Amino acid sequence: MQKLFKKGIKKQAGLPPGTLIFTGEEKVEKIKINILDYKKEQYEEKVIENIEDCYPYKDTDTVTWININGLHDIGLIEKIGECFKIHPLVLEDILNVDQRPKIEDHDDYIFVVLKMLKYDRNTNELNIEHMCLILTNNCVISLQESEVDVFSAVRQRIKMSRGRIRVLGTDYLVYALIDSIVDGYYTILEVYGEKLQDLEKNLVENPTPNTLQLIHNIKRDMAFIRRSVWPLREVINALIRGESKLIHEKIEIYLKDIYDHTIQVIDTIETLRDIISGMIDLFMSSISNKMNEVMKVLTIIATIFIPLGFLAGLYGMNFKNMPELNWYLGYPMLLLGMLIVALFMLGYFRKKKWL
Amino acid sequence: MQKLFKKGIKKQAGLPPGTLIFTGEEKVEKIKINILDYKKEQYEEKVIENIEDCYPYKDTDTVTWININGLHDIGLIEKIGECFKIHPLVLEDILNVDQRPKIEDHDDYIFVVLKMLKYDRNTNELNIEHMCLILTNNCVISLQESEVDVFSAVRQRIKMSRGRIRVLGTDYLVYALIDSIVDGYYTILEVYGEKLQDLEKNLVENPTPNTLQLIHNIKRDMAFIRRSVWPLREVINALIRGESKLIHEKIEIYLKDIYDHTIQVIDTIETLRDIISGMIDLFMSSISNKMNEVMKVLTIIATIFIPLGFLAGLYGMNFKNMPELNWYLGYPMLLLGMLIVALFMLGYFRKKKWL
Amino acid sequence: MQKLFKKGIKKQAGLPPGTLIFTGEEKVEKIKINILDYKKEQYEEKVIENIEDCYPYKDTDTVTWININGLHDIGLIEKIGECFKIHPLVLEDILNVDQRPKIEDHDDYIFVVLKMLKYDRNTNELNIEHMCLILTNNCVISLQESEVDVFSAVRQRIKMSRGRIRVLGTDYLVYALIDSIVDGYYTILEVYGEKLQDLEKNLVENPTPNTLQLIHNIKRDMAFIRRSVWPLREVINALIRGESKLIHEKIEIYLKDIYDHTIQVIDTIETLRDIISGMIDLFMSSISNKMNEVMKVLTIIATIFIPLGFLAGLYGMNFKNMPELNWYLGYPMLLLGMLIVALFMLGYFRKKKWL
Amino acid sequence: MQKLFKKGIKKQAGLPPGTLIFTGEEKVEKIKINILDYKKEQYEEKVIENIEDCYPYKDTDTVTWININGLHDIGLIEKIGECFKIHPLVLEDILNVDQRPKIEDHDDYIFVVLKMLKYDRNTNELNIEHMCLILTNNCVISLQESEVDVFSAVRQRIKMSRGRIRVLGTDYLVYALIDSIVDGYYTILEVYGEKLQDLEKNLVENPTPNTLQLIHNIKRDMAFIRRSVWPLREVINALIRGESKLIHEKIEIYLKDIYDHTIQVIDTIETLRDIISGMIDLFMSSISNKMNEVMKVLTIIATIFIPLGFLAGLYGMNFKNMPELNWYLGYPMLLLGMLIVALFMLGYFRKKKWL
Amino acid sequence: MQKLFKKGIKKQAGLPPGTLIFTGEEKVEKIKINILDYKKEQYEEKVIENIEDCYPYKDTDTVTWININGLHDIGLIEKIGECFKIHPLVLEDILNVDQRPKIEDHDDYIFVVLKMLKYDRNTNELNIEHMCLILTNNCVISLQESEVDVFSAVRQRIKMSRGRIRVLGTDYLVYALIDSIVDGYYTILEVYGEKLQDLEKNLVENPTPNTLQLIHNIKRDMAFIRRSVWPLREVINALIRGESKLIHEKIEIYLKDIYDHTIQVIDTIETLRDIISGMIDLFMSSISNKMNEVMKVLTIIATIFIPLGFLAGLYGMNFKNMPELNWYLGYPMLLLGMLIVALFMLGYFRKKKWL
Repeated sequence: MQKLFKKGIKKQAGLPPGTLIFTGEEKVEKIKINILDYKKEQYEEKVIENIEDCYPYKDTDTVTWININGLHDIGLIEKIGECFKIHPLVLEDILNVDQRPKIEDHDDYIFVVLKMLKYDRNTNELNIEHMCLILTNNCVISLQESEVDVFSAVRQRIKMSRGRIRVLGTDYLVYALIDSIVDGYYTILEVYGEKLQDLEKNLVENPTPNTLQLIHNIKRDMAFIRRSVWPLREVINALIRGESKLIHEKIEIYLKDIYDHTIQVIDTIETLRDIISGMIDLFMSSISNKMNEVMKVLTIIATIFIPLGFLAGLYGMNFKNMPELNWYLGYPMLLLGMLIVALFMLGYFRKKKWL
Repeated sequence: MQKLFKKGIKKQAGLPPGTLIFTGEEKVEKIKINILDYKKEQYEEKVIENIEDCYPYKDTDTVTWININGLHDIGLIEKIGECFKIHPLVLEDILNVDQRPKIEDHDDYIFVVLKMLKYDRNTNELNIEHMCLILTNNCVISLQESEVDVFSAVRQRIKMSRGRIRVLGTDYLVYALIDSIVDGYYTILEVYGEKLQDLEKNLVENPTPNTLQLIHNIKRDMAFIRRSVWPLREVINALIRGESKLIHEKIEIYLKDIYDHTIQVIDTIETLRDIISGMIDLFMSSISNKMNEVMKVLTIIATIFIPLGFLAGLYGMNFKNMPELNWYLGYPMLLLGMLIVALFMLGYFRKKKWL
Repeated sequence: MQKLFKKGIKKQAGLPPGTLIFTGEEKVEKIKINILDYKKEQYEEKVIENIEDCYPYKDTDTVTWININGLHDIGLIEKIGECFKIHPLVLEDILNVDQRPKIEDHDDYIFVVLKMLKYDRNTNELNIEHMCLILTNNCVISLQESEVDVFSAVRQRIKMSRGRIRVLGTDYLVYALIDSIVDGYYTILEVYGEKLQDLEKNLVENPTPNTLQLIHNIKRDMAFIRRSVWPLREVINALIRGESKLIHEKIEIYLKDIYDHTIQVIDTIETLRDIISGMIDLFMSSISNKMNEVMKVLTIIATIFIPLGFLAGLYGMNFKNMPELNWYLGYPMLLLGMLIVALFMLGYFRKKKWL
Repeated sequence: MQKLFKKGIKKQAGLPPGTLIFTGEEKVEKIKINILDYKKEQYEEKVIENIEDCYPYKDTDTVTWININGLHDIGLIEKIGECFKIHPLVLEDILNVDQRPKIEDHDDYIFVVLKMLKYDRNTNELNIEHMCLILTNNCVISLQESEVDVFSAVRQRIKMSRGRIRVLGTDYLVYALIDSIVDGYYTILEVYGEKLQDLEKNLVENPTPNTLQLIHNIKRDMAFIRRSVWPLREVINALIRGESKLIHEKIEIYLKDIYDHTIQVIDTIETLRDIISGMIDLFMSSISNKMNEVMKVLTIIATIFIPLGFLAGLYGMNFKNMPELNWYLGYPMLLLGMLIVALFMLGYFRKKKWL
Repeated sequence: MQKLFKKGIKKQAGLPPGTLIFTGEEKVEKIKINILDYKKEQYEEKVIENIEDCYPYKDTDTVTWININGLHDIGLIEKIGECFKIHPLVLEDILNVDQRPKIEDHDDYIFVVLKMLKYDRNTNELNIEHMCLILTNNCVISLQESEVDVFSAVRQRIKMSRGRIRVLGTDYLVYALIDSIVDGYYTILEVYGEKLQDLEKNLVENPTPNTLQLIHNIKRDMAFIRRSVWPLREVINALIRGESKLIHEKIEIYLKDIYDHTIQVIDTIETLRDIISGMIDLFMSSISNKMNEVMKVLTIIATIFIPLGFLAGLYGMNFKNMPELNWYLGYPMLLLGMLIVALFMLGYFRKKKWL
């Protein structure tokens, strides 16, 4: 079962706001900080050890993308907060892996919370990862829980100077990052689409209680995905409508494109939910149907043989005076009678369409 | 099962926006480009080989309708994009056959995505086809996946100069094209209406698991149709409200007419869904009912013959001292007793209304 | 089954807008045109043969009500269109009997589409009839499919000069016509209310599959009624809010009254739907319950007699060495044992509350 | 069954608006008119015979509350209408006991329709009573169907000059009257809450078809209560927002208080509906469960004794050559074998957790 | 069952507004009043006996937090009302423990009603406690029913001067109090999350009627929690949007944070409801499935042994002329025949996948 809350939530209750507590599990051994600094003609990539090493990039005229894998080091988050003058409540949200997607416009920077979805085909588990983006005038800081590199395509595009990414600013970079996360949603939904298709065959051919269990697992995962994606719509809408000076007008068309994709993802989730509820109905009726079939077999056998058995029992009685027993043709006549009864029963069942 | 996504969606994830990738299947062998150029007194129709042949029509004072069947040639789409100065993200949407219906007003042109529905009566499959319209000042470009000519009636009207189509501009042509697509929705819904009517008879007379399967297939198709039609409402509404200079005021009344039709289609979809859910309930209860009937037969037979069988067994015992066995009328008296028991049982069942 | 679409819808697809095609069935043999012309002191009623005969009334200072029964004569509709300068799309809507309720304000006239409901107690069928009203400055044209005269009360009021109808203008006449249609909805809902009450008794006393079928028929009819009434709310609201010079301010209070009635009709439809869904639940559970009862009888009989039958079978065996068979009291002792077993079973069932 | 419409609705259809027809049942023999006239230092209460006796109070500077029990005298209503210059449509609404709650602001007076709920513990029937309030500058007229005095507490407060009621005007009196009606809703809901609690115990201990019937009755009553209370929200909201000069600003806080109570009543209705739907589910599953238990008993008995019976039957056969029959220990060995089979079966059932 | 209303509600009906009546149970023996007075450099905490002792703090320049545990002393509430000039309707709401969450801005003070949730793990009961906050310029009064100290963390923060609480005013204190209540909601939901997880295992392994009962209890508790939390959203939103001079602009970001948390709590409630409804479906189907299994066992046993029993019965008949009985190999041949019949049956069941 996908947990509703990660561990550690209790620790948080009652503390003053802005108290930094990491609510997730440590998913990486060592926090990895990666810097990518570029402008049209210039490109630099490096892995740094200490967060202090990124301070110099803060006020250059280049676009700097600081990517941090691993959120459990509160000290590090505090240092970023100090350096970039981030509000303590924002830092708290970065560390709270249960925070739902949202956007906050703090004049000097925009803070975005997203959820990254991964599906582990080995354990058949959905993995929802907390992802934060901070957009300042010339820096983008992306923070994520684990080491998985979802942004390699974006990094590659910057390196290769593919498309317009090197020409445009931090807002376009943020767009590119969100875009690649939303693209990931499609992949996830496709996985579930395939799983449903596989299950559907099973449903018709051989429904087992396990089938229902699997459908319900998908249904629940879908509820969690929905919870992660629905608020994203509002987030991107706020980015489009927002009058932040950090988002330039020419980025709007790109944001609308992600908005479109988000709507389509939501649409697909709803369609999948519809399909799932239809499958549950089908399953239920196919179980009923199987029961019906079992009952029919029982009824046919019992209904034919119980009366015949009675007749046999009748002539197994030990009454002294049972004239039929002494008839020469008694036995074959009884057998004939039994055959007639059986055929009559079979005829009745055929008429009822039970055969 | 109607696929949730067409193949190729995975390729797209992570690529820079505006990268042109065709996500559908190749439905035509050779892309067909058809040009129809007209004004009040003039009419010209021709099939061209190279897209370059349509460039001259771009800035004439006639209305030019360029119809393209087949979307898999990315080069061709790129050329159109260059010639008509279409934004790369629009070109991407043209090629993405999973794009949901939408409208985009780019000052110089309006871009509309629609879904065309076809029902294949041989395979009993619903077919959803991607359809794009680009409306410029004096050109309309329509792009569709396959070769099916849905617009023949419109073409005929232009040729014959029927109605006001030759007098009015590109906006009216776009209206006429959307109108003929929406008209197609009615036909599709009528097909499903008829299928439901056929199934309904089955439901009452002879419900089989297959019946439910068929109802569920219709239900799922309905979900996909809904997904294609719902956003259309917003699209047409945006066309009506929109303040684009490309849509003239006198077209508004026609657009309102399509809007009306779209509402009616949506309305009908909802009514069909209502009917379907009622039919599923009926099916379920008719299955229960059949089971009930099976149980009754079993119960009647078993309840009558099990006690009689017991009596017969009683007098089949080999006790030395069983005086009844030696009575002269023992056997007929027992038979009489059995008859009374059976009649009593039958009376009880009649009282219970099981017979 | 109430048809989703009337016949003829296919013919329409792809035709130019404003092409006049009648989509319904011919419900009257001969179209009947009836004129009623009145002002405060003057009253004239006549049946005319040719639509041309009503032209003179077009610009008089009296209120003229032209009532047309039968829509299948396209020529007639065209003539009205020419005479009163009605837009071709409006004429198309008049002929399209599937058009949902709507209102259109074309400066010089207001066009209203309504649905008239009739319930045929002989065939137990709901009948939805297309009804159009055109309101000009001094004329009201009402068009309906069949000959049924729903407006006789209004006609009587004009004739008798009852109420304020002779004093007020065309807007009040339109109000009176809509009002009498909405009043008809109450009558229909009352019919369904009564049918449900009848069915409810059946549900408790003697549920048959037919009962469910009847409930489902009502449910479906309710879906069709809902579809006819819901949009009416918007229609009347638009009349109230509308700033047409054809609707005078003092009529507003009357329109609000119909609005109120419409809301109440919708309210009642929703309540009936609620009641219906409750009845389906009750039916289902009463079926389950009956099955349960059947099963109990079977179980009681089988559970008592199968063990007894076994005992009887035991002493019917032919082993040489079965000392009990030779006991003098073997038989009565066995009978006593059987009685004890049977009583024990009955006690168990009583404890389980199966008896 | 709570009637959907009171009798008499048919008579109304087609009549001119403002025609006064009483649609309810006569609930009182004689209409009772009660006048209460007060200002800060003055108090007068009397029962009058003729409505004309209240005319003098119309324009005094005191607050006059005219309470009328019984609506079936159309003449009386007409006289009130003339005296207070009430619009005929308002008079029609007073007489139409099916009118849903609404508010109408006619400059000189405000007209409010409410529903009073009563629960008759003897017949277990919900009673919905029509209640109208007319608020003029210095008069409040309250009209209700039956004789039940719901306003005795308010009357007492005026008499005793408790609270601020004698100081404030007609608007406060109207508030006090509505408040006492809304307070009555709580009492009704409490009754249903208790009934549900009683039923719930039954549900777990001893579900009978009657239990479901009772739950469904409550569900239906709840639908009718909902229908009476929901529109009230809008009514009170309109009073608060309304800019009528008849409602003074200092009354607003009191109206907000009733609004709050109305919301809470609606809230409670929704919670009760939730609880009811949960109880229906529980009932259904408890029926299934009982069936399951019945089936288990049958299966256990049949599965144990049918094979044993077969064995007994086997050795009851009359073959000449059946060596076992002649063994000295044949019989006890068979008994032992049967015991082993029975124990094996019991073990199997225990493993399956059927025992 | 969580009561819908606390006792005492009936007493209230019909009384004049502002009449003070305590509608809850007395949850504390002695009302406890606690004062906490602080500014940046100063801190004082004391328990007072008489409410009059807090009057001096009313107009100091320090922040004074008066915490009252126990609401049943009407005199005390009246004194507070007089001292702080609270409107009688507000006092009524303080005493009405069924009041739903709301906010009222009375220029000089803001009145907030909240619900505090507690889960008693011993009785497995949800406890909803009434909580009121009054915010004046320099005082915060918190009133709660019982003695449970939910605010100890806040008190500690003030004492230790942790965070910014000593620097900011009453608005921040109110924020801190609401925040700690909302934090409590997470804890409650986590408890229910865990209970569901425990139940889920049961559902798959060993569904009993009790399991369903437990799920339904959670479902009902969830309905009550929802009712307590939903309105909170509006409350906090009103605080944020509100233009009260009592809420300073710099508090807004903190209020937005609680708003966020509230949304997340609501979100989680909805997800839990989804999961619960899925579990009920699973339970139902697992019951069906068990029945199916029971039926299969019965059918297999009966279907194999009934025909065999019939054969045995056949040769137990006492006809004189039954040649098979005299055959030397009659008995073993019959046994062989029975074996074949049994194997055939088993094969059939295997084919049907019942084994």
